[in-house]
Amino acid sequence: MFELLKTDSSSRARLGRLHTTRGVIDTPVFMPVGTQGSVKALDPRELREMGTQIILGNTYHLHIRPGMDIINAAGGLHRFINWPHPILTDSGGFQVFSLAKIRKIKPHGVEFRSHLDGSLLFLGPKEAMAIQRALGSDIAMVFDDCPPHTAGPRELRGAVDRTLLWAKECREQPRASGQLVFGIVQGGADASLREACARELVAMDFDGYAIGGVSVGEPEPELMKAVETTEPFLPAHKARYAMGLGTPAQLVELVARGVDMFDCVLPTRVARNGTAFTTRGAVSVKAGFNKADFRPIEEGCECYACKNFTRAYLRHLLNVNEILGLRMVSVHNSHMYLKLMADIRGAIATGTFAEFRREFVANFVPSRKILTAREESR
Amino acid sequence: MFELLKTDSSSRARLGRLHTTRGVIDTPVFMPVGTQGSVKALDPRELREMGTQIILGNTYHLHIRPGMDIINAAGGLHRFINWPHPILTDSGGFQVFSLAKIRKIKPHGVEFRSHLDGSLLFLGPKEAMAIQRALGSDIAMVFDDCPPHTAGPRELRGAVDRTLLWAKECREQPRASGQLVFGIVQGGADASLREACARELVAMDFDGYAIGGVSVGEPEPELMKAVETTEPFLPAHKARYAMGLGTPAQLVELVARGVDMFDCVLPTRVARNGTAFTTRGAVSVKAGFNKADFRPIEEGCECYACKNFTRAYLRHLLNVNEILGLRMVSVHNSHMYLKLMADIRGAIATGTFAEFRREFVANFVPSRKILTAREESR
Repeated sequence: MFELLKTDSSSRARLGRLHTTRGVIDTPVFMPVGTQGSVKALDPRELREMGTQIILGNTYHLHIRPGMDIINAAGGLHRFINWPHPILTDSGGFQVFSLAKIRKIKPHGVEFRSHLDGSLLFLGPKEAMAIQRALGSDIAMVFDDCPPHTAGPRELRGAVDRTLLWAKECREQPRASGQLVFGIVQGGADASLREACARELVAMDFDGYAIGGVSVGEPEPELMKAVETTEPFLPAHKARYAMGLGTPAQLVELVARGVDMFDCVLPTRVARNGTAFTTRGAVSVKAGFNKADFRPIEEGCECYACKNFTRAYLRHLLNVNEILGLRMVSVHNSHMYLKLMADIRGAIATGTFAEFRREFVANFVPSRKILTAREESR
Repeated sequence: MFELLKTDSSSRARLGRLHTTRGVIDTPVFMPVGTQGSVKALDPRELREMGTQIILGNTYHLHIRPGMDIINAAGGLHRFINWPHPILTDSGGFQVFSLAKIRKIKPHGVEFRSHLDGSLLFLGPKEAMAIQRALGSDIAMVFDDCPPHTAGPRELRGAVDRTLLWAKECREQPRASGQLVFGIVQGGADASLREACARELVAMDFDGYAIGGVSVGEPEPELMKAVETTEPFLPAHKARYAMGLGTPAQLVELVARGVDMFDCVLPTRVARNGTAFTTRGAVSVKAGFNKADFRPIEEGCECYACKNFTRAYLRHLLNVNEILGLRMVSVHNSHMYLKLMADIRGAIATGTFAEFRREFVANFVPSRKILTAREESR
């Protein structure tokens, strides 16, 4: 189901194709995040126009609202949200460990209170897979134990043991027709734990492998190390997915480390604060210096926002809280991420990825503010 | 510039065509309101797809933010907001009398404090026309004195005198190339004042006439009476515009009383509260009864929202505060208003307006909540 088309000669970057029942996904790929059944501020037409092939949905959030009775009645998530293309669903593990404040870890899952109304809920491998089966996602994720960045060795070891136990349970659950299931490697910054976790998951033969326990507040070198110490133990003929990452420059670096799939809330989240991504770095569209700048956010950008509006107008819209402002920056940022992945694929295909990577990373100046936003939450 | 194509045999309804330098407007017409340079939550493509021929901009708001230096530098309002089609600009009179809390009426305008930062500003016929000239709108409105619904006879009389004096001053100001200027009839519920005001304005020979001092909190019978007592004194060969109105059923009734042009914030404002307009009346999309309703907002509706999404999904989006929810209800409501005007034009053209009017008004059940929202403000 994963076709490895080419491996870059200068790095571990890969060009591939992931086949799902609802369509082919060209990798490396960026997957816009539709946590609650909507990629924030965007509509399906806008997503398709910018080249979106797959979006994310979230088990935890959708399970709480609207609830599975509604999504079942609609005939699954694709029909409920009118997105007939591939969807990957997160298992809810990350949210149970980050959003739900009061929780009790049990052998077969986690008892927790809804972050919304405090009601008592239970999510484990069985439940997470049943929900994802009902959602009917094209790619389901196993239910894992995702410890915080600050976890000690004992907690990290426990999380890996639990992740493996639960992965095995997930593996045995029934799936939706054609649904792929990906395992998630945990282990924090501990290379030997990462290796052990990866090896055991690979032995379980999942359809793809995610690197989890990243984007949990760790500094960038640690994030890169987590990927570098995991990737060698993942099979070449399966897709690899780094969860919840990252800035544009980080995506380029992660592709160079052999990652094929990405999701991140950054493009739409920073857009709502009036910040845009360009190939030169992040820029505050809302800032006063744009008030009489009649250029687009980025010259040459082919997104709807850049083809139609100036920085001065978008700055005004953001300034007076007009929804069109955050909409257009969300369009631009999501387009920028998708275009970046298309450029990366082109560079790998033509054997120019080393040059592309060097230039992109040198030109891209991440702002401190952006990195903070990334660390906030998913 | 106004072509009267047909007058209905059963009512005072008219079919017409208003010619402006940026395009022809088919009347009766609904003009979506872009107060701050954006029709709330919608983009220009969506507006064009639903058949929008002309939108509104507002002198008071645009003068305060972004300010005329920015709009001048952009090359006018059309270029600033990327709307190359007709724009009508309100003169700011209404806002000076409703939004600005501290004001002093002077012979040649009003001194007031910005509702935003309290800075001292002055707007009169000369200033309002100069701003509208710089905005470059296709239709400019005179600067009028719009008293509240509760004004006594003396205040009403004073407002009419001032409106006439200011209209004369506006008439003498230079205009943008091809810009039409409309006079505004005041006079509240006093039929003789309305008549006198209309007669004097008509003698000044404006390009069109608006009925002002409506949508200021008056009950519906009084609103209808204000139009009925004004309309007979307006020339048949000029367009008539009822400002800031109304519900769909009210629009049908106002067309029947000879009105050609309408603007109203209702479709987008109630959308942001999760309320949709249908030909049967207003419906709360957000309400619990829609949670498993997999029909569109209105069966047979051709808008993007109804062709793509169910009530259940839109209800979920509104419920979890996803921007796509209010966007889609805004699309539907604005489309509904534009489609209603197209249906009205069709009915007048085919001589079936009497039947259309009877059926539409009988089927449309306005909710109390909607009428209250209308009365709040513009």
